[in-house]
Amino acid sequence: MASTSSLTLSQALLARAVSHHATEHRRDSRLSPVSLPTFSGLKSITSTATRATTATNCRRVSSRQVRAAAVETLDATTDTSLVEKSINTIRFLAIDAVEKANSGHPGLPMGCAPMGHILYDEVMRYNPKNPYWFNRDRFVLSAGHGCMLQYALLHLAGYDSVKEEDLKSFRQWESRTPGHPENFETPGVEVTTGPLGQGIANAVGLALAEKHLAARYNKPDSEIVDHYTYVILGDGCQMEGISNEACSLASHWGLGKLIAFYDDNHISIDGDTEIAFTEDVDKRFEGLGWHVIWVKNGNTGYDEIRAAIKEAKAVKDKPTLIKVTTTIGYGSPNKSNSYSVHGSALGAKEVDATRQNLGWPYEPFHVPDDVKQHWSRHTPAGATFEAEWNAKFAEYEKKYSEEAAELKSIINGVLPAGWEKALPTYTPESPADATRNLSQQNLNALAKVLPGLLGGSADLASSNMTLLKMFGDFQKGHS
Amino acid sequence: MASTSSLTLSQALLARAVSHHATEHRRDSRLSPVSLPTFSGLKSITSTATRATTATNCRRVSSRQVRAAAVETLDATTDTSLVEKSINTIRFLAIDAVEKANSGHPGLPMGCAPMGHILYDEVMRYNPKNPYWFNRDRFVLSAGHGCMLQYALLHLAGYDSVKEEDLKSFRQWESRTPGHPENFETPGVEVTTGPLGQGIANAVGLALAEKHLAARYNKPDSEIVDHYTYVILGDGCQMEGISNEACSLASHWGLGKLIAFYDDNHISIDGDTEIAFTEDVDKRFEGLGWHVIWVKNGNTGYDEIRAAIKEAKAVKDKPTLIKVTTTIGYGSPNKSNSYSVHGSALGAKEVDATRQNLGWPYEPFHVPDDVKQHWSRHTPAGATFEAEWNAKFAEYEKKYSEEAAELKSIINGVLPAGWEKALPTYTPESPADATRNLSQQNLNALAKVLPGLLGGSADLASSNMTLLKMFGDFQKGHS
Repeated sequence: MASTSSLTLSQALLARAVSHHATEHRRDSRLSPVSLPTFSGLKSITSTATRATTATNCRRVSSRQVRAAAVETLDATTDTSLVEKSINTIRFLAIDAVEKANSGHPGLPMGCAPMGHILYDEVMRYNPKNPYWFNRDRFVLSAGHGCMLQYALLHLAGYDSVKEEDLKSFRQWESRTPGHPENFETPGVEVTTGPLGQGIANAVGLALAEKHLAARYNKPDSEIVDHYTYVILGDGCQMEGISNEACSLASHWGLGKLIAFYDDNHISIDGDTEIAFTEDVDKRFEGLGWHVIWVKNGNTGYDEIRAAIKEAKAVKDKPTLIKVTTTIGYGSPNKSNSYSVHGSALGAKEVDATRQNLGWPYEPFHVPDDVKQHWSRHTPAGATFEAEWNAKFAEYEKKYSEEAAELKSIINGVLPAGWEKALPTYTPESPADATRNLSQQNLNALAKVLPGLLGGSADLASSNMTLLKMFGDFQKGHS
Repeated sequence: MASTSSLTLSQALLARAVSHHATEHRRDSRLSPVSLPTFSGLKSITSTATRATTATNCRRVSSRQVRAAAVETLDATTDTSLVEKSINTIRFLAIDAVEKANSGHPGLPMGCAPMGHILYDEVMRYNPKNPYWFNRDRFVLSAGHGCMLQYALLHLAGYDSVKEEDLKSFRQWESRTPGHPENFETPGVEVTTGPLGQGIANAVGLALAEKHLAARYNKPDSEIVDHYTYVILGDGCQMEGISNEACSLASHWGLGKLIAFYDDNHISIDGDTEIAFTEDVDKRFEGLGWHVIWVKNGNTGYDEIRAAIKEAKAVKDKPTLIKVTTTIGYGSPNKSNSYSVHGSALGAKEVDATRQNLGWPYEPFHVPDDVKQHWSRHTPAGATFEAEWNAKFAEYEKKYSEEAAELKSIINGVLPAGWEKALPTYTPESPADATRNLSQQNLNALAKVLPGLLGGSADLASSNMTLLKMFGDFQKGHS
């Protein structure tokens, strides 16, 4: 266990990310299919009947088969024309939803559809029927205005939170598809984004949580905490100071499982980024201590994107920035690569022109059958990933019961019985003292009994008295 | 003249930097010595009698002599032992003031005294008896907690805002030497600093103002706007996102007259910066587009510091970061290079040990006579700088009366007569419109008659309707 005297917001996120969903989960554990242990953080978003079917399906696929398939796909054995069709499906779901709402940002989804497809279809491990499975890979769309990308991906991947009717109610009051992603509204969205730069900072927090829990609970014979955090961020995020702060810490902590895609499309709302943003982002990130890769053809260079992800995963001790040169509004013959496609609907005429240009004969919101069929495997695969992990955890629990109980309590946000007895007591006769000193006494008393208590202080622990004296700082070497 | 649709805070600062002191000035213009034109932004902080003496002194020194002397000093002809004595004076003024207040940050002034001495004694052009002379060089202590450095320098340089009694009332209620620099309290302090990262951002604004006004008003035969902005910032400033944002813009705009000293002492309040900040700052700044110089011996490498400043001045199209490796609390035998000297008084015993270590036999707050004598030349020199500039401006005014009048009005913050007639009128019968559209109509109407009106928008001009249609963006090429 680690405490810290010099962290900022990221650690606060850890506690929240771990406890929120777990709390939600407990209410719904009766819906748990395939006897998942309650601590896996399951929150039902489907009816019991649906879940039962899912559970049946998933049993038909052996875990070994699914894993092999995932690896093969990463090696690009999937038919390229089908990949292209899937990518265009993502583009048109975004185009159609923005058009129907007559509001939104079609440009980013059209440009980032290839990397989005590859992440959700070939790379990430998740369970669409249980968005809160603990050991899932995380995805954060830091460029939150492009949220139709994420909604389209969640829809194709089989998340019940984004059905066709949800896509059709994009940006409407009380819909599950608001104009920027909201994690409390849409299961499958990890964090609320929109304020530029915030998503990448939250992602640093998620990757930090993974690394910290892995360091505390993994054993040489059982890596029970083992997932990646993927991010897509744009120029707007890169311009914000908060992203630089968080990314500096990310490499300081050696967050090797954080992989960020920088959508380098050179277009901001007011025009070419040349008008305001001409720094060398690659070099800055190298200065920050990141591994940097440049994918020069983010529009059709699928193998280039795949290779970059492989390389990023091979770098264990540093986060990776994959700069992907894309064309905003890719496919729109008259508006691509211009600010006009950033934050407005294309308009009926340009939508038609884009359909013609990309050879897309379908009605709005249509997902072609072969694309649907291709993505359908993620429901059984996801259930298998989770079931596999549950089995692994059961083994772990047998050997390391104490650690397993502690991790469960952290995931579930359950406080150990009698924790409050650790608190010091004060009476009117107690000597007067500064509140920050009393705070430190209490924090240190609680740290002994609450395994999930972590804290941070922006270089002022000696003033604000937040130091947990029994622990060292949270550092790369001993997280 | 330029407007913009894609700037952030820096431009707002321009308007404020230009107008604030000018407004103050008008109240005091009757005190103006040596018939300075009122628009030079004079704010009296001395009695008329004192000013008269100053004026007499300054007439004794020819401007050519002063300039030659300044250049020679930059070439380090001053006796090194006297330089060292002056630097130790700065150190002990800081030590003694913090000790008397029993509160404050002695570490930075002790480490940064050499660069501070060289800046104020050898490099900067200012008039201590008129801190608001328009064409002065600006200095911003972004690491504002180390303010005793600046107070000691202002004191030695002859600013009447920091007399010996002011040093002795450091951090006391209503003193002119508060615990962080305040520009409204202490003439000679350009901007209020303390919140880390803010000072360097303000400095970018000051350098931007200089570049913009120079581009608008300088003529091939008369550079009437021509001054530098110097900054000292520390690790804490570098950790803050705002400094990265502002420094990215600084190179985008090509602010070659911005020279920032990064006090790289490796110590933060909670310990070595290794615990939280391990990025390669040099490389990040190269990525941001800055010229970067490393002074490896900031403690005694005076010539190295001088050479770096020369090099920085020779780079015309980029801001320069001079990374200076210093020892925090330099001279303290038991506390230097440790966090214990960052934010607390040394304590009587360690003050004695430091006096012994640096060979400083003087009483607290004593400025040795030869040091006093050495610095005394800045009063006549400053008056000469200002008088020279006033003469130059008088010539400029003869040739370019329209531009001169406009620049004066900007410096003084005087609105042209009848400006309000440019505003559109509306009646209850006027068609309804969004407030942002009405705002744009008004902004554009005012831009035609107010030469000092500048604006910015963080990549949202098409939404918030701040575009001044008659102008282009503020850019490096056409500022």
